Amino acid sequence: MQDYELTIQHALWRIKRLFPRKEIVTKQEVGVHRTTYGEMVPRINQLAGALRRLGIKEGDRVGTLCWNNYRHLELYYAVPCMGAVLHTLNLRLFPKDLQFVIEDADDQVIFIDQTLIPILNQLAGKIPAVKRLVLISNGQPVPEHQLGEMLDYETLLAAESTDYPWPQLKEQSAAAMCYTSGTTGNPKGVVYSHRSQFLHTMGVLQVDNLALSEKETVFPIVPMFHANSWGLPYACGFAGSKIIFPDRWMGDAPSVVELAETEGATIVAGVPTIWTNVAGYLEQTGKRLPKVHTVICGGSAIPRSLMERMDKLGLHMLHAWGMTETSPLGSTGVVRSWIPENQVLDRRLTQGIAVSGVEIRIADPASFEELPWDGVAFGEIQVKGPWIAKGYYNNADPEKMTPDGWFRTGDVAKIDPDGHIIIVDRTKDVIKSGGEWISSVDLENAIMGHPKVLEAAVIGLPHPRWDERPVAFVVERPEYKGKVTSEEIREFLDGKIAKWWLPDEIRFITEVPKTSVGKFDKKVLRSGAKPFTEAANATAQR
Amino acid sequence: MQDYELTIQHALWRIKRLFPRKEIVTKQEVGVHRTTYGEMVPRINQLAGALRRLGIKEGDRVGTLCWNNYRHLELYYAVPCMGAVLHTLNLRLFPKDLQFVIEDADDQVIFIDQTLIPILNQLAGKIPAVKRLVLISNGQPVPEHQLGEMLDYETLLAAESTDYPWPQLKEQSAAAMCYTSGTTGNPKGVVYSHRSQFLHTMGVLQVDNLALSEKETVFPIVPMFHANSWGLPYACGFAGSKIIFPDRWMGDAPSVVELAETEGATIVAGVPTIWTNVAGYLEQTGKRLPKVHTVICGGSAIPRSLMERMDKLGLHMLHAWGMTETSPLGSTGVVRSWIPENQVLDRRLTQGIAVSGVEIRIADPASFEELPWDGVAFGEIQVKGPWIAKGYYNNADPEKMTPDGWFRTGDVAKIDPDGHIIIVDRTKDVIKSGGEWISSVDLENAIMGHPKVLEAAVIGLPHPRWDERPVAFVVERPEYKGKVTSEEIREFLDGKIAKWWLPDEIRFITEVPKTSVGKFDKKVLRSGAKPFTEAANATAQR
Repeated sequence: MQDYELTIQHALWRIKRLFPRKEIVTKQEVGVHRTTYGEMVPRINQLAGALRRLGIKEGDRVGTLCWNNYRHLELYYAVPCMGAVLHTLNLRLFPKDLQFVIEDADDQVIFIDQTLIPILNQLAGKIPAVKRLVLISNGQPVPEHQLGEMLDYETLLAAESTDYPWPQLKEQSAAAMCYTSGTTGNPKGVVYSHRSQFLHTMGVLQVDNLALSEKETVFPIVPMFHANSWGLPYACGFAGSKIIFPDRWMGDAPSVVELAETEGATIVAGVPTIWTNVAGYLEQTGKRLPKVHTVICGGSAIPRSLMERMDKLGLHMLHAWGMTETSPLGSTGVVRSWIPENQVLDRRLTQGIAVSGVEIRIADPASFEELPWDGVAFGEIQVKGPWIAKGYYNNADPEKMTPDGWFRTGDVAKIDPDGHIIIVDRTKDVIKSGGEWISSVDLENAIMGHPKVLEAAVIGLPHPRWDERPVAFVVERPEYKGKVTSEEIREFLDGKIAKWWLPDEIRFITEVPKTSVGKFDKKVLRSGAKPFTEAANATAQR
Repeated sequence: MQDYELTIQHALWRIKRLFPRKEIVTKQEVGVHRTTYGEMVPRINQLAGALRRLGIKEGDRVGTLCWNNYRHLELYYAVPCMGAVLHTLNLRLFPKDLQFVIEDADDQVIFIDQTLIPILNQLAGKIPAVKRLVLISNGQPVPEHQLGEMLDYETLLAAESTDYPWPQLKEQSAAAMCYTSGTTGNPKGVVYSHRSQFLHTMGVLQVDNLALSEKETVFPIVPMFHANSWGLPYACGFAGSKIIFPDRWMGDAPSVVELAETEGATIVAGVPTIWTNVAGYLEQTGKRLPKVHTVICGGSAIPRSLMERMDKLGLHMLHAWGMTETSPLGSTGVVRSWIPENQVLDRRLTQGIAVSGVEIRIADPASFEELPWDGVAFGEIQVKGPWIAKGYYNNADPEKMTPDGWFRTGDVAKIDPDGHIIIVDRTKDVIKSGGEWISSVDLENAIMGHPKVLEAAVIGLPHPRWDERPVAFVVERPEYKGKVTSEEIREFLDGKIAKWWLPDEIRFITEVPKTSVGKFDKKVLRSGAKPFTEAANATAQR
């Protein structure tokens, strides 16, 4: 068989030869910008020419600080296809983290959307290694900044030939990189190869994966700076799907609904928060989106109530699981043919089943031994496959690989006999008690089932005998403030969870500390928590 | 990204872990044999153990002379996954060709279905290099033969462990091979790598390819000895589709329909002849197959009348194009969203559009220069991709690659601006006239449009000035025997074809010679044809 290198240049071939008429639509301040693959290809060539003129060579990193729009898509093609590495900068990083990733990746040039100048301006004078900034704008006045000279995107393109001599690339060469927004320590860089992007795309197009095809109109509301926008940009290129880009209007439900409606979206993709907003807006207005047949949802678990609301609105949610380190598609919640009707919703709420190309296991925290798929045992999800990271850029966090070559996701899950993954915790939050694991999330959900409890966060605290034991931090509902006892909660939990899962202590607090995105901040809880009392130790040993 | 080797072992992982309950059903003399992937996996392990015990090592070729059944599927898994090479023997080859391919491939062992013993028995004493024969049977009396000792498949398996230490394979290593049934010279061997099989499978599962998924029940009526059964066995394994095997009852319409109906086939696959038979049977009996939503059809062009009949029967045909050398999927007739309703049937009758992973071009016969996709120019189809041959086993026919690395298919086509491939001829039949090509097939169809003509075959004959010029061999309808003139046919063609396509001579014959499968045998026509007369030469130069 031919030694055909699996590269993103294949997507370029397809959009040019097979789908020149297909549209790419981008929302703008007023109306939309409308182009086609056929019009975009010469611009991709010009962009590659401009990059070369700026001194970008094979392997150089090119940063983008951009929303979801057609010019970002041009960069998605031109940068990797000329042999350079597309580094999509996460505009939600803290300034010090943004500075770190720009330095760590050694970005030579950064392309920046005009509206994001204030974000980069926080690093003015701090990123001297970046040689050039290229401004992407529609001609609006540029916000004040101290970033120095900026080149203009359209001016650069206009100076170049609409032909470009694309080099012969090796499939193992780097195509793109993306940093995880780790809650501890520095962000860690994941480098995608041309091969991994090609193979991931071949997966996304499959029926039991995201099922993209030429006849679909795809609306990626997941940022293009986040894990390849779930692989949708290249998948649309391979398939020839029409794309709708929201630019920076991602969180705004009326705008999302209007764009989906007027442009005829059939597949939409985004995190649960977006769909919560959209569901509320649709319920309120009575509007519906009858053309949308699939709402791809990932990033975090889908609340049951949200899926039920969306079902009522005629919007079918498909849960997908993955992470930056898995390109990101690891599993999808496509329901198997043998699942009885009354269990379908439960299964759709799981993290789904491994897609073709990805091998998955759950493993014992200590021994890395594989655990059974019985829906009971839980361990860390570990994955293998051609689009799974084998480590991080500059060898950050070498512990993420098992000795036998599996990537450690840090997600803790059980897997049922049908292969459905059910995530129960993160490895850093799970409580390690006497060689066994206790899911902090399951425990929290059980406690929050108590009618007098508003919020509960559970962490493990060091314990002399059991290594760790759970402590629950409970916030009472306002009307029960000061009127709930530990005993009452323990009694409530009795029979609902295994006896050895019972928290050793229940501590009442006024509010659970939260991160900027509203998740329980267990790091803060842990660092401020008093150690176990002697009494508690005695209890735990009973 | 991980250096994950793309091998068929991934299919083994999926059927074992994700789809143990899914069925494999095989027609038998009485009723069906029913098993599951879950039951098959230990047998695949046993089979690998048996192969090892027979002395099969990595890289050794293992022949199969088998119909479509579950044991052949076990061989499809065990042989490549243990590192050996599955050589599916085409039971329709002439004995001398069968002998050639067994010798050329150097098959160490041959697995043979009991009913096929008479075929191999024609080579008794002539294939000394084959060390072992393994009989696959349901215990019926063995036909008389002079092939010597045969081992028994089930006995071999029973002696082995249900575990097997699958080796770490490299993706470039050979997984399978298949010979073309060339009409001239010896058959030529195509070697598939694990990588090519894996990637081809990733393609087959895509929506705009064959769209296999877990919920489908797939009925491959295309032989498993023919081009990987169009990739369906591994695609079903990746997807977890239920499979229905017809064993040797492939051509029998009542049996095909009954099996499809009782086992709930949703996707069926086979050559046009099968569907002609099935359509006739359905029309006659009034039976229908409402669960079948896709009839994959390849191997040769679909006659318009057949597609129309099948449409009326509620059976949607999907045309796919490819060949042994392309694994085989090259293009599919999935209709693009922009095609107007009144052109849909025309487009479905083309050879379709290149699937993801395959690059295609049409090239000038002499210069190999690419020709435009204007629906007019035609040239040889040349292809590139990770599952396209780069040559043949033992370097047979090195001329099949262009200097710039494209595989020459030998098919002559035009491509319309939407990317639809329309095959017009074979390179060996197309008429090379003054540096331009004339499609013999188009010319034949034009002549056969004449009401007095029953059959017409066109070949090119050497011509002093134009290199070649067309000659038409025409058979009149019985009632017009001896009553048709050349002039009459020329006049009829006037305006229907380009003037320079007009045949220089029209020769009336009683019957067009045909091959064993009923195609025009132009080789016979060419070898027996008288050269041009002086008069004709004069005409051609007018």
